[in-house]
Amino acid sequence: MRIVGIDIGGTFIKAGLVIDDKIIKTRKVRTEPKRLTDTLIEITRNLGAEKLGVGAPGLVDKDGVVSRPPNLLGIDKLSLKKILEDRLKIPVIIDNDANVIALGEYKYGAGRGVKNLVVMTLGTGVGGAIIINGKLHRGRDFAGEIGHITIDRDGPLCRCGNYGCLETYVGGPYIVKRVQEAIKRGSPRKGIKTSLNEYKEITPEVISKEAYKGDRYAREVISEMGDAIGIGLASICVVLDPERIIIGGGIANMGKVLFDKIRKTLKKRLYTREEIDIRKSELGDRAGVLGAALLFK
Amino acid sequence: MRIVGIDIGGTFIKAGLVIDDKIIKTRKVRTEPKRLTDTLIEITRNLGAEKLGVGAPGLVDKDGVVSRPPNLLGIDKLSLKKILEDRLKIPVIIDNDANVIALGEYKYGAGRGVKNLVVMTLGTGVGGAIIINGKLHRGRDFAGEIGHITIDRDGPLCRCGNYGCLETYVGGPYIVKRVQEAIKRGSPRKGIKTSLNEYKEITPEVISKEAYKGDRYAREVISEMGDAIGIGLASICVVLDPERIIIGGGIANMGKVLFDKIRKTLKKRLYTREEIDIRKSELGDRAGVLGAALLFK
Repeated sequence: MRIVGIDIGGTFIKAGLVIDDKIIKTRKVRTEPKRLTDTLIEITRNLGAEKLGVGAPGLVDKDGVVSRPPNLLGIDKLSLKKILEDRLKIPVIIDNDANVIALGEYKYGAGRGVKNLVVMTLGTGVGGAIIINGKLHRGRDFAGEIGHITIDRDGPLCRCGNYGCLETYVGGPYIVKRVQEAIKRGSPRKGIKTSLNEYKEITPEVISKEAYKGDRYAREVISEMGDAIGIGLASICVVLDPERIIIGGGIANMGKVLFDKIRKTLKKRLYTREEIDIRKSELGDRAGVLGAALLFK
Repeated sequence: MRIVGIDIGGTFIKAGLVIDDKIIKTRKVRTEPKRLTDTLIEITRNLGAEKLGVGAPGLVDKDGVVSRPPNLLGIDKLSLKKILEDRLKIPVIIDNDANVIALGEYKYGAGRGVKNLVVMTLGTGVGGAIIINGKLHRGRDFAGEIGHITIDRDGPLCRCGNYGCLETYVGGPYIVKRVQEAIKRGSPRKGIKTSLNEYKEITPEVISKEAYKGDRYAREVISEMGDAIGIGLASICVVLDPERIIIGGGIANMGKVLFDKIRKTLKKRLYTREEIDIRKSELGDRAGVLGAALLFK
């Protein structure tokens, strides 16, 4: 069976032809929200699919309707499954992108060997997925949206309408904006110099790069992100008590400063005092592609 | 089969002999932590049990060891299962009290008809339990402790070591202390009179009673509790997206003011904008007794 798996990211669409659980061919193209469905159709035909699995950002319901994706401007209530099936004439399954990444990591990556797993994806938005007894927990449709756990009831307004969501402390655009504003004010923090003010464009990548080189302010920014993630994960752990937590997405590449702080905060805050097995995702782009194909298993 | 189910509460131990899913006889005695095991043994023998199921507060592990119960002074790391089996010579299963209440409500009460359910118990501590696909989700041992979700990262220190847990906003002793302190300062809030300062002892019950009579301050206290619960439930709903939420325990009797505010906050804060079916528990004391007996199913 020739299954094509596609992961729609905010920046890139990643696709692969999967035969017998192996990725045979891949495609990676820049995401253009305006011609999203055309691009998906081209890629799918081009790879010669008999079935298509898609991981999409935002809220994805049972009918494959995509709503409020955090990073696809102009897309809302898009009946993606119906559109793709009508035009491609093959079976299509759409699921949330983090769900699909979780399936991939669970079966082939950092999630192997456990049955109860939480996956967090750190990028433009903060996504998540929950595997319980070896199966994705979807709830009525929208379970796993761990970016929208409240960290501080009086915190910043989130794009979702809530205040103080985890995403407002660690989502890419929120972080970039905070650093830009700090730099505009001059010295970002009392007595701390930073090389970040030499960049024309601030991105999570340059914050990460400067932190790696030892920039104190950049390291503080990342440490504060780790603290917020630790607080959020403590809430998730008291609710679910999972065997393992996997953290993926671009921002997960911020490395040791981030992960050390996550672990430290979690240890300090978690009621049950249990050890938590936190790992970085292993499969990168392949997780979403393999996971999307796994939707047909 | 003569199964005895016991629910160890902070104030009362509630027990019943359950035959063919029906409670035949009951016992209710005041909880004295110092002679807890003796009391449990007496009741169990007295009811003529062939098997014993127990719901205990705090963290209960696979071996039936009870740790850090919020309301049993002096009890910690108590090997309750082992002690009871050694002395009673019958099979004993111990589980968390909220888990046991959830089992009872799921099978016979407010949880009938759905497969994905969150149960919150409001009392001295704030407990919780999660039913997924018709089964209790225990995680590694300690899942469902929804009282220790963070509401405000800089909030009050919780007995669990975390800051700003839901329990610090709605747990009985925290509320009583807050009201007592407000009354000690004189008028509890600017321009608001209250009848609560006429009571010798402040309890959740008198706050509830005065709110029912229209006392504005008492109503505000309850409304603030509802707000905190709504924030906590919003976090739980983005993670689990359950079909129904059941709220039980003494404080759930605070009535319409409480439930209206919970629903309002949840509606305002919940990312997915879904309708949430929130109900009060139906079985009262019987939930824990029946649920404890169900541990043998």
